[in-house]
Amino acid sequence: MNIGILGSGIVGTTLGTKLVSLGHAVKLGSREHANEAAGKWVMQTGNGASQGTFADAVAFGDMVLVCLRGDVSLPVVKSVGAAKFNGKIVVDVSNPLDMAKGFPCPLLPELVNTTSLGEEVQKALPGSFVVKTLNTVNCEVMVKPGLVKGESDLFISGNDAAAKQKVIEVLRSFGWKTVIDLGDITTARGTEMLMPIWMRMMGVFGTPHFNYRIVKG
Amino acid sequence: MNIGILGSGIVGTTLGTKLVSLGHAVKLGSREHANEAAGKWVMQTGNGASQGTFADAVAFGDMVLVCLRGDVSLPVVKSVGAAKFNGKIVVDVSNPLDMAKGFPCPLLPELVNTTSLGEEVQKALPGSFVVKTLNTVNCEVMVKPGLVKGESDLFISGNDAAAKQKVIEVLRSFGWKTVIDLGDITTARGTEMLMPIWMRMMGVFGTPHFNYRIVKG
Repeated sequence: MNIGILGSGIVGTTLGTKLVSLGHAVKLGSREHANEAAGKWVMQTGNGASQGTFADAVAFGDMVLVCLRGDVSLPVVKSVGAAKFNGKIVVDVSNPLDMAKGFPCPLLPELVNTTSLGEEVQKALPGSFVVKTLNTVNCEVMVKPGLVKGESDLFISGNDAAAKQKVIEVLRSFGWKTVIDLGDITTARGTEMLMPIWMRMMGVFGTPHFNYRIVKG
Repeated sequence: MNIGILGSGIVGTTLGTKLVSLGHAVKLGSREHANEAAGKWVMQTGNGASQGTFADAVAFGDMVLVCLRGDVSLPVVKSVGAAKFNGKIVVDVSNPLDMAKGFPCPLLPELVNTTSLGEEVQKALPGSFVVKTLNTVNCEVMVKPGLVKGESDLFISGNDAAAKQKVIEVLRSFGWKTVIDLGDITTARGTEMLMPIWMRMMGVFGTPHFNYRIVKG
């Protein structure tokens, strides 16, 4: 599959490398056409990896992953324009962290509790199928769930069942066995609001390599 | 130990029954001295169970459990008065749910993200040792962790290490093996913000009998 990734930071490049290794073609999109980090990633990754602007990456992808800092996700997708995303699956991996507040930071007040970044991305892209997932774990765990011992769980939110199923297939190819479908995109509120306890646990454990296993009666 | 419980709803009576069964003396506090639900609970529970006003329960307890609806916790503790709580361990079990919004509801906007109910209770009771815990699970699971299969985890937040240790001893007597100490009372933001995903999971699973197991690398 052709996959566009918005963002050339650690999350975008980690996911990009894994997807290329699985046989997908990946274009990493950045603000400028010749982004240095993206260029380095293309050189290191080789066949199947390419770079371009945000708009190039969107045009390239049958599926588009949003791996941006939460405070720029909405401005970037709006700057590309909703029409360019029409009919595509958009996987929102970002969290609305208010990084200006220092670590551990709160969430952005306009994107928490009564709405979420996932919902606002869906509103901004009405012709696309927005799916929220992967945002509850560190990027190394995203592509290598075996980094934590025993099985653990991912969550998925989105309005379109077929789009969620396609994304779950990609997650399974990463090694994820249990993906809990929470429901429509409004359920992204719950997964984004896991960030505050996640940051505290990272501080307590001294590692970002941990995850949740949901146990039932 | 003498334990006061504020609130005679399902959470307060469930915890009260368990504590009496473990040999503690428990006074259930309500708005009015002769609250009907509390009276019924005293009759059913027998020896070791008593009832009274909120102020009676605070005066009675070496440890005081706040098991109120999140929107009335602060008004109630303030109406009793901070001086009455001085030197006591106050275990805040409540969550700041905005129930007027219908289920699944958001959290109260003035008690989320940049503060928490736990922190505000501590600010209102500066002479007390406020500990936040148990608020991440259903009340039947609180007193019977074996209701979910395999081991699962509780979280604890609070400024005073000795107070947390005393509360952890009570939690161990309920059967909890792992209690993750997240740090000071500001970490209650993280556990209270678990409520939105908890409500969604309850909807998906069709039962409140589930919990988190944190798995590490």
